[in-house]
Amino acid sequence: MPMLDDDLLATPACLGIDWGSTSLRAALLDADGRVLAERSAPCGLLQLPAGGWADAFERQVGDWRARWPALRTLMAGMVGSRHGWSEAPYCGVPAGAGELAAALHWLEPGRLGIVPGVDCDDAGVPDVMRGEETQVIGAMALLQRRDATLVLPGTHSKWVRVEHGRIRHFATAMSGEAYALWRRQSMLARSLPAGEDGPIDDAAFDAGVERAQRDGGLLHHLFGVRTLALFEHRPAASLASYLSGLVIGDELRALAPPVAGAGELVVIGAPGLAARYARALRRQGHATRQLGDEACWRGLVELGRRIDAR
Amino acid sequence: MPMLDDDLLATPACLGIDWGSTSLRAALLDADGRVLAERSAPCGLLQLPAGGWADAFERQVGDWRARWPALRTLMAGMVGSRHGWSEAPYCGVPAGAGELAAALHWLEPGRLGIVPGVDCDDAGVPDVMRGEETQVIGAMALLQRRDATLVLPGTHSKWVRVEHGRIRHFATAMSGEAYALWRRQSMLARSLPAGEDGPIDDAAFDAGVERAQRDGGLLHHLFGVRTLALFEHRPAASLASYLSGLVIGDELRALAPPVAGAGELVVIGAPGLAARYARALRRQGHATRQLGDEACWRGLVELGRRIDAR
Repeated sequence: MPMLDDDLLATPACLGIDWGSTSLRAALLDADGRVLAERSAPCGLLQLPAGGWADAFERQVGDWRARWPALRTLMAGMVGSRHGWSEAPYCGVPAGAGELAAALHWLEPGRLGIVPGVDCDDAGVPDVMRGEETQVIGAMALLQRRDATLVLPGTHSKWVRVEHGRIRHFATAMSGEAYALWRRQSMLARSLPAGEDGPIDDAAFDAGVERAQRDGGLLHHLFGVRTLALFEHRPAASLASYLSGLVIGDELRALAPPVAGAGELVVIGAPGLAARYARALRRQGHATRQLGDEACWRGLVELGRRIDAR
Repeated sequence: MPMLDDDLLATPACLGIDWGSTSLRAALLDADGRVLAERSAPCGLLQLPAGGWADAFERQVGDWRARWPALRTLMAGMVGSRHGWSEAPYCGVPAGAGELAAALHWLEPGRLGIVPGVDCDDAGVPDVMRGEETQVIGAMALLQRRDATLVLPGTHSKWVRVEHGRIRHFATAMSGEAYALWRRQSMLARSLPAGEDGPIDDAAFDAGVERAQRDGGLLHHLFGVRTLALFEHRPAASLASYLSGLVIGDELRALAPPVAGAGELVVIGAPGLAARYARALRRQGHATRQLGDEACWRGLVELGRRIDAR
């Protein structure tokens, strides 16, 4: 996304901030959620010192806020968690744009607010999201749909069922974190090349996804990474892709049936990872559609509209 | 196991060594596999320098070998792996005492040998064991059975099906390693008490086992450890037991149906861990029986008998 010259800007409709565990991304948005200007900085929950949120905020977007003093700023993500800037209590399901707008956590009334996360109950065990709710609201607006199943891959992937325009149920899978642990910290790391992963090996990834659909369970199939290396059944360079396929394939096997209805699955995420999920889903017979950053920005603008309408 | 005074010993039938990743255990055994004297040392595959096996062997059992020069020494475990003392090629399935004795890997013919590991194929992906085959042979002799399903919990648990006295099929689950990774290295570690795990909390363990039987998959249920802490639905002190229940419960769910036939399951392992598996299995409706160190010693003696009979 190229940086635009601020001097060229029309008056933006909203300053949107996606502030998560590892980074802050800020964008000046028009009334349809299109990006007029964008910035990002590696100052997420994991990097910021306790109490460092207000300073980081001023540093990153203080000039924009000074230039357009009436502009509303809406933030989503871990910024609203217990260890974030200010805790925004979770909104229960069903949660649509109306419920989220009504529950907005204001730091400056009407001017600076944090979108609440969403919680739900899975047979006595809670599940939570923060930030994904905004992407989901934006995706439904972009696609002009009221019902959908959405997958938001990441460190902790979310599978979300939306009905009648509201988040009805969702489930988290710790897949990205699991991949990183097994890839780098487990006994399997000895069988895998050191250094950064290269481009995905599609055939090995597909084989991992297929394998994960078989009986035996993830903890069993993971051991296969070791034995495939031991017996040289697969080149070591392809094993990281195979491992990724095992983990994502296990997530699909476990969560697609209970969460996904019939019809197209919407995958929202960074292009490379989202494409990997879409590939795995298609091979399991699911139609897919992919969205990226635009979902979050559109979601914040949608919530702003609901606030204006109140 | 108290150390016996060597002077009191009858002539042993066999010197058995269980030499794995983290330790060496050596025992002078009578003709039924009973321990006459036992020693152990923390000098496994992970501690020994490359090429350090012969020195460690001499240091640990050189005096015993000098005292009974005709005594046969049989070793099982990672000592026979590619990075062990000397690689003992895998024996394929079906593998019983006869096949293993015939494939013994001799360092000194008839006098110092390594029991081969066993490999099998699971739809194109190999699986392997080293050391467990000896415990299985011993367990079948101790129980005077020809058919059984055995579970050997550990860092990499083994589920083994024996038919007509031979290992017919088996599957590995990386459950112990998974527990350690999630307990110590993952985001969940922040929700769990630092320091060593205390005694198991049976109710929390049972809840984890039950939870793992529900749809959603391990990667989903793991996230519940975080949310249960976040919402204070369970005391933090009980969460390590709950996590252990999730991991072991997932292993049971995935491997008990394909591997276990009807009838009693035999659990072989250190008393605490084996009791935990037996508890989980009983709650899932399986009858169980528990064995410990005696299985390995009896297995080595059984293999010695087969060698004598050849």
